[in-house]
Amino acid sequence: MSLINNIAPELITSDWLNTDSVISLQSLRGKVVFLHGFQMLCPACVTHGLPQASAVRNAFSQQELAVIGLHTVFEHHHAMGKEALKAFIHEYRLRFPIAIDMPDPVSGIPLSMQQFGLRGTPSILLIDRQGHIRFRQFGHIDDLKLGSMLGQLVAETDITEKPAVDNKSSANETKGCNEHSCISP
Amino acid sequence: MSLINNIAPELITSDWLNTDSVISLQSLRGKVVFLHGFQMLCPACVTHGLPQASAVRNAFSQQELAVIGLHTVFEHHHAMGKEALKAFIHEYRLRFPIAIDMPDPVSGIPLSMQQFGLRGTPSILLIDRQGHIRFRQFGHIDDLKLGSMLGQLVAETDITEKPAVDNKSSANETKGCNEHSCISP
Amino acid sequence: MSLINNIAPELITSDWLNTDSVISLQSLRGKVVFLHGFQMLCPACVTHGLPQASAVRNAFSQQELAVIGLHTVFEHHHAMGKEALKAFIHEYRLRFPIAIDMPDPVSGIPLSMQQFGLRGTPSILLIDRQGHIRFRQFGHIDDLKLGSMLGQLVAETDITEKPAVDNKSSANETKGCNEHSCISP
Amino acid sequence: MSLINNIAPELITSDWLNTDSVISLQSLRGKVVFLHGFQMLCPACVTHGLPQASAVRNAFSQQELAVIGLHTVFEHHHAMGKEALKAFIHEYRLRFPIAIDMPDPVSGIPLSMQQFGLRGTPSILLIDRQGHIRFRQFGHIDDLKLGSMLGQLVAETDITEKPAVDNKSSANETKGCNEHSCISP
Repeated sequence: MSLINNIAPELITSDWLNTDSVISLQSLRGKVVFLHGFQMLCPACVTHGLPQASAVRNAFSQQELAVIGLHTVFEHHHAMGKEALKAFIHEYRLRFPIAIDMPDPVSGIPLSMQQFGLRGTPSILLIDRQGHIRFRQFGHIDDLKLGSMLGQLVAETDITEKPAVDNKSSANETKGCNEHSCISP
Repeated sequence: MSLINNIAPELITSDWLNTDSVISLQSLRGKVVFLHGFQMLCPACVTHGLPQASAVRNAFSQQELAVIGLHTVFEHHHAMGKEALKAFIHEYRLRFPIAIDMPDPVSGIPLSMQQFGLRGTPSILLIDRQGHIRFRQFGHIDDLKLGSMLGQLVAETDITEKPAVDNKSSANETKGCNEHSCISP
Repeated sequence: MSLINNIAPELITSDWLNTDSVISLQSLRGKVVFLHGFQMLCPACVTHGLPQASAVRNAFSQQELAVIGLHTVFEHHHAMGKEALKAFIHEYRLRFPIAIDMPDPVSGIPLSMQQFGLRGTPSILLIDRQGHIRFRQFGHIDDLKLGSMLGQLVAETDITEKPAVDNKSSANETKGCNEHSCISP
Repeated sequence: MSLINNIAPELITSDWLNTDSVISLQSLRGKVVFLHGFQMLCPACVTHGLPQASAVRNAFSQQELAVIGLHTVFEHHHAMGKEALKAFIHEYRLRFPIAIDMPDPVSGIPLSMQQFGLRGTPSILLIDRQGHIRFRQFGHIDDLKLGSMLGQLVAETDITEKPAVDNKSSANETKGCNEHSCISP
């Protein structure tokens, strides 16, 4: 079943950084949520995804839109633990709250990543003011298109269902990392 | 009197390129209009403004949003006549309709530019589906912010007045051209 | 006969801008010469070639290396005359001497362009301290490779012939302009 | 005493990656050496320094020039150990040999970094064919200038001493990381 247009399930996390307390998606109702799935050693996340997430945070009022990072480690687990992530956040000066996705020792794919059907990193998920997932994309999205979608979601005040898109097309299908993305096994 | 939130007056033009017939703003009611004021020898227009206008045209449905160029020549008039502009449009592969702003031999500032209060090039003017000017800016605007505003305007279907902004802050105040813009006398 | 490794013939010009007097290649012996062939309405010249030529001028001592522009108009002649070029030079703040290639009314390809075998714009020609053409390229060349070649030419003090390259490979072969270059008929 | 124009001392390393055996600078005599000091969590290294090092490796013959990475960890030591570096090298597809600078538990500044007087990351050190340090820089250097220096060093065949530069000017003096560099304590 597609998650698109359904209420987003809660994040399953092992920890949070850049916030004093755990953040639930439920608590963000009324705001648009920009959820950015990344790994600190994913080149495309470092080059494009995370700077874009920071730019989104600066471009919109925090009353209207919340930016949440989700560290979805599915490879090189030993090199991307919490302490390494803290160093990374410090050096890259990331300001928005970042959740650490709950590891799944069996599959190696963390639980929120599984639940949201994210195929790799970077991934973005847009959630509307009523909590519905309205857009999901794996790989790069340009600023103009992203800005347009966020602008439309911010402009919504009613609870009518709107058309939504699950865009898988922009990223390479080979497992592993290339300059655009990392794909999970 | 500010033009912001008022119905946009019609363009005053001496000619049109990239279109079979004259286009009135009146005829575009129901669509969002992205009006891009430029000069073919303005470096910031060539580097940023015109590529952004082309990207806007590609990012939105032409049923929802119309991109219109306005060649507002206020300097080096002899080097930016209609034939030179046609060569420029050909070489830069511009696809959207482009109006030639009506020269004013007295002031040197063309008439639409005067009427819309444009201070130089590049300038953008956003007009909503009901024909109201909703945003005017001289100088560079980033894709994320522009996309967000266009997304919000596209999302509007009612005729309620919305807050608007007349943003003059991003451009240098010295007359002449720099890497960001050209300012009219 | 290839021009590579032979003494560069003199430029054939109708006029010069950004200089008080005509400049002969003969008068530049002892310096490396970076000759940049461009057209003011060639997009790749505006985006890459001319900024690179300005960067070369700033990166090297003018005692060691001379940057010379050559306006080789082979299309849209009416839109790229001397007065238009002066406006262009002013707006783009070009500082180096620029020769206007002598028109050939018969072929439309100007005479220096013919003589140096330039296939379109942008083109570069590197001339060593003894006046030999050492490198010729049509289309984009990256800064690292260009810097390396210029560094090697600047380092030469003897008159020994060195291997040279005539690189035609980096540009598209279709006539007309694309984002990388303009090719002459 | 300045190291400039003196024979480079040997690297003091705890390990090597991307090579089957330890590499001594002595063994590289006859080639120009481009030594790139970096940290895997230094943003400017990831954005500028390492891509530039890879580009240098591609632009020059490996018979003429050797690119060597030096992982000079002076902060967040726990997050930048050997296994994390291996994951980083894999994801960023670095191909050149990389030495791990020998830690100094007392100061936290690794030993090669101390010995070469490197102030932070990214840093570059250029060594000529005879083994002399000819250029040292902390912070960003543009491709044109770097290419020019490398071209001049590659062009040298004699053993005459040449003027050299120790350029500290391009980087910010505040300790910690900014978008241009990381400075050691």
